[in-house]
Amino acid sequence: MADQIQEFNDYRAKMNEVILDKQNKVINRLFNLDTNTYAEGALSTKVKEMLGLVSSMVLRCDDCIKYHLGKCHEQGITTEEMYEIFAVANIVGGTIVIPHTRRAAEYWDLLMNN
Amino acid sequence: MADQIQEFNDYRAKMNEVILDKQNKVINRLFNLDTNTYAEGALSTKVKEMLGLVSSMVLRCDDCIKYHLGKCHEQGITTEEMYEIFAVANIVGGTIVIPHTRRAAEYWDLLMNN
Amino acid sequence: MADQIQEFNDYRAKMNEVILDKQNKVINRLFNLDTNTYAEGALSTKVKEMLGLVSSMVLRCDDCIKYHLGKCHEQGITTEEMYEIFAVANIVGGTIVIPHTRRAAEYWDLLMNN
Amino acid sequence: MADQIQEFNDYRAKMNEVILDKQNKVINRLFNLDTNTYAEGALSTKVKEMLGLVSSMVLRCDDCIKYHLGKCHEQGITTEEMYEIFAVANIVGGTIVIPHTRRAAEYWDLLMNN
Amino acid sequence: MADQIQEFNDYRAKMNEVILDKQNKVINRLFNLDTNTYAEGALSTKVKEMLGLVSSMVLRCDDCIKYHLGKCHEQGITTEEMYEIFAVANIVGGTIVIPHTRRAAEYWDLLMNN
Amino acid sequence: MADQIQEFNDYRAKMNEVILDKQNKVINRLFNLDTNTYAEGALSTKVKEMLGLVSSMVLRCDDCIKYHLGKCHEQGITTEEMYEIFAVANIVGGTIVIPHTRRAAEYWDLLMNN
Repeated sequence: MADQIQEFNDYRAKMNEVILDKQNKVINRLFNLDTNTYAEGALSTKVKEMLGLVSSMVLRCDDCIKYHLGKCHEQGITTEEMYEIFAVANIVGGTIVIPHTRRAAEYWDLLMNN
Repeated sequence: MADQIQEFNDYRAKMNEVILDKQNKVINRLFNLDTNTYAEGALSTKVKEMLGLVSSMVLRCDDCIKYHLGKCHEQGITTEEMYEIFAVANIVGGTIVIPHTRRAAEYWDLLMNN
Repeated sequence: MADQIQEFNDYRAKMNEVILDKQNKVINRLFNLDTNTYAEGALSTKVKEMLGLVSSMVLRCDDCIKYHLGKCHEQGITTEEMYEIFAVANIVGGTIVIPHTRRAAEYWDLLMNN
Repeated sequence: MADQIQEFNDYRAKMNEVILDKQNKVINRLFNLDTNTYAEGALSTKVKEMLGLVSSMVLRCDDCIKYHLGKCHEQGITTEEMYEIFAVANIVGGTIVIPHTRRAAEYWDLLMNN
Repeated sequence: MADQIQEFNDYRAKMNEVILDKQNKVINRLFNLDTNTYAEGALSTKVKEMLGLVSSMVLRCDDCIKYHLGKCHEQGITTEEMYEIFAVANIVGGTIVIPHTRRAAEYWDLLMNN
Repeated sequence: MADQIQEFNDYRAKMNEVILDKQNKVINRLFNLDTNTYAEGALSTKVKEMLGLVSSMVLRCDDCIKYHLGKCHEQGITTEEMYEIFAVANIVGGTIVIPHTRRAAEYWDLLMNN
């Protein structure tokens, strides 16, 4: 089961390297800025990762969702909290978010049972 | 061929159960409300399923499209009618909808030949 | 009150003329194709206008919504039917569609009381 | 200045009444469910309102943004926290979110100086 | 007529200042990065501004469209070229882009007659 | 490696035939119009293909991206130019575009090494 998590992380790491190696300054600085966005600040990293997750859900980006699910898991978010994030995403974004929620629910269970 | 339809329905049913079992009230009530939306009313279920399909197409959600294609098939929609729905979706949503139309056309043929 | 309808139609007509006068073949043919999309066919114009409306709502385009509301009104759609279209749009597209539904509801009342 | 806040709230209240009076069950239940989504739960209302706001920003719905800005203000969110939410929205959603951030920044200052 | 251009630029400049003054590092660096994106490189600023414009059109952000129309005008893009950009945007993004094209066509004429 | 390119092109060609064979006039004319959009004009096909690509990226349509990457490759676009297009797409569309950029970067390398 954990294979699916490993596979996702590996492809992500491999392709990030391919992209960063091309040395496009704008892209490389954006990648760097992306990391900084979720650093501790006035808001905690935990809250920021929840913000990143819900944004990814309403924009319906499965890979972004997986990435933030992983980060939320590292931040110790519980399943009950997670489903309240799912609830906001589905109410704001509509039933069009449901298929992404199905895949998110599956990946979340993988992370919790890892 | 029908395997693709079965697989889609099975995953959908399995993950809906996983989600509903978590007992998040907002999500469970939204799922329930979703079903009611397409019930016979001033508009027929047939028309409502067409509305659900075209919405899914312009929002480019492949799983939502498959679901509504199945429902439209149950409602006896013909291939000629179906392609007129595809036409509205592609004109309103643009050529960005074409790849989703390709997959929709394939799944529709599966449903019709099932 | 009807001024709001007139104003919308006038700006639309004026700017369409400005655009078509530029003689870009692709744009002019797309405008023409757009009109044909809603012609009577295997599906009635009435159903097609409902499809155009719900698509405009989930894509959250206020001007497109107004245009199709006008066309739906011409097709004799009732307020009860209209709100069932609104329901599909809000369930599929989520609460993000609500502000557009408020403006649609206001414009629909203008059309009905015109 | 506060006129802009009053005007927004008044139009919202007036049109919600127009919509709810039409007694479409699906819409009325969705409106009710929307309210429940942000109730205290495993996550606080404060966090949920931040989730609602960031979702509204990446989906670029100005009225939804204003609504959640008002709610965030009621929850005592500081300007420093608010700009960290804006940061997530702009990084995830891109520079396309900037014009909405401008209007959000203006409305936030109105709320803070009210 | 040029008042509309001045008003747009003034509001944009005023609110950018409000936002940048809040000193959120992520936002301020993103604003800076945004400027760098359109600098001369392997592709000319002219081509990059066309890319920024068509992206803004398919994402249907009126303010972003106005901004890039201004920049395209500075780059000496002709009306015939401009309408070919509009054509790509409308074909890729669909008729949902038409209302934004109307406003873009109006603003373009203002810029050309300024 | 080139298998992935072949597979993409084959499925696209096969399904286009399935769709065109249904003889829906609106769809068939839209497909035809789509081809004309990228013909040499005031703007070169090379620039138009870049416009088509960046639009596909910000709208996050993987198949559309692959198609335009193929066309850009035929037009002799360099890797450095390509990454400047990726930069515009990621800045305008946000980090939500990154997963699509990963897949685009992979497919671009396939095309270049073909």
